[in-house]
Amino acid sequence: MKKTVLIVGLGLIGGSMAKAIRANTDYRILGHDISEKVLSDARFLGDIDDIADEAGLAQADIVLVALYPVPTVEYILKNIGSFKKGCVIVDLCGVKQYVCDRVAAEARAHGVQFVGGHPMSGREFSGYEYAKDDLFAGASMILVPNAGSSEDAVCEMEQFFTRLGFGRVVRTTAEQHDRMIAFTSQLAHVVSSAYIKSPEALLHSGYSAGSYKDLTRVARLNEQMWTELFLRNAGPLVREIDEIVSHLKEYRDAIAEGREDDLRRLLKEGRERKERVG
Amino acid sequence: MKKTVLIVGLGLIGGSMAKAIRANTDYRILGHDISEKVLSDARFLGDIDDIADEAGLAQADIVLVALYPVPTVEYILKNIGSFKKGCVIVDLCGVKQYVCDRVAAEARAHGVQFVGGHPMSGREFSGYEYAKDDLFAGASMILVPNAGSSEDAVCEMEQFFTRLGFGRVVRTTAEQHDRMIAFTSQLAHVVSSAYIKSPEALLHSGYSAGSYKDLTRVARLNEQMWTELFLRNAGPLVREIDEIVSHLKEYRDAIAEGREDDLRRLLKEGRERKERVG
Repeated sequence: MKKTVLIVGLGLIGGSMAKAIRANTDYRILGHDISEKVLSDARFLGDIDDIADEAGLAQADIVLVALYPVPTVEYILKNIGSFKKGCVIVDLCGVKQYVCDRVAAEARAHGVQFVGGHPMSGREFSGYEYAKDDLFAGASMILVPNAGSSEDAVCEMEQFFTRLGFGRVVRTTAEQHDRMIAFTSQLAHVVSSAYIKSPEALLHSGYSAGSYKDLTRVARLNEQMWTELFLRNAGPLVREIDEIVSHLKEYRDAIAEGREDDLRRLLKEGRERKERVG
Repeated sequence: MKKTVLIVGLGLIGGSMAKAIRANTDYRILGHDISEKVLSDARFLGDIDDIADEAGLAQADIVLVALYPVPTVEYILKNIGSFKKGCVIVDLCGVKQYVCDRVAAEARAHGVQFVGGHPMSGREFSGYEYAKDDLFAGASMILVPNAGSSEDAVCEMEQFFTRLGFGRVVRTTAEQHDRMIAFTSQLAHVVSSAYIKSPEALLHSGYSAGSYKDLTRVARLNEQMWTELFLRNAGPLVREIDEIVSHLKEYRDAIAEGREDDLRRLLKEGRERKERVG
């Protein structure tokens, strides 16, 4: 019999999950969203088979929750008694400690499997209209096993996300995920947003080299979402900001004081680090 | 009669100029470089017609100096009496005040035209082997008229660089150029180099989203060249580093103190600025 997947939240990520599941499996897809329009569009386009009602909740073998962190926790806890026993719930939030800490024990107590997840892919644009079935092609899918998940459930999800086109599935802890994501993604958004605040930004037309474009691309962000992600991962992110600021000061002082050898060494260390870690 | 162009320094920029001139004009091209191998390769590949000797210096109608800032000034001043009267010399350094201040008056005194120049294009790799004839396709060419250049000479160079494939030629002052370049290019390299210094960078495999790749791409830089460029533009660059550090602290404190509204406003301002200025 066909498996049923319920997707909660048909934004960029949830919508792309629906399209990727449709493109790569024969699973039945149920959708849930606060927007009636998005639901009817998704059904019209064939990305979902049905709009999920209370009964749908109890039919799903896999539940993907693609909401912001706070609503993700609220949704799972509120409905924890209504899911099918033994089903696997995966949240798709960009922070994992916050979600896992609040959901894992409850899931276990209610006989459902919970696995933390984070698809490492995105766009500068939000919403279902930007969703696409190859958003995750070749990307990393992070899975966070925890007190609420069995080894079987995690293995099943590894296979499931691999089928959807992810290039690799990485298992890690919530703590390790949040530290890494603070560096690779959240810090990038903070720096990009801070970069564009220079008064010179208003005058740069004609001078915009590729480096400027790279450094400022993700300043075009969804401030509602990133505010929540940053605040739910404040510790690791603040440490990363402090880290880059301390390094920026080393370069700054070497330049201000004309210390040529020190400046060259700082730049050389950065180049070698980049060549080593990619 | 065919015009003769002399290119001094066949690195990435000088080599690409040779190839672009070859592809887009019928000018005779003379090359000068400290490396015998580069010169013979360039001649073998047909990128230059001849290796420049003392006589070549006196034949060139256009002289492009594609060296680092200090050697650029040294080369022009040392040879200022040997160039053809009325020829146009354009330097291609990434800093303009330093070069123009030292060269303009001398050029004028010796009856040669000097125009400051900066092709806004580059690669993460240095050297003639990475040169290509379309490196400048669609890019901005910055020209800095000064006390050593006539309006005719600047107009001629506008036409010349347009023929080579540049998308636009922008005229500006040395002071304005150096302020803008500190923001759009030099700061990007400093930030990228500082970004990669986090201890987390050594562990990020599997977590590297597009934003990480963007933010760290130009950390793979030529430290010899950038050290010189940064030190020759220390004032504007230090101001830009101080600027981004002050903004980073605003985000940092809002995150550390859980000030949700302030954080959302900071991110919104960044997004709106980016949408406005591109």
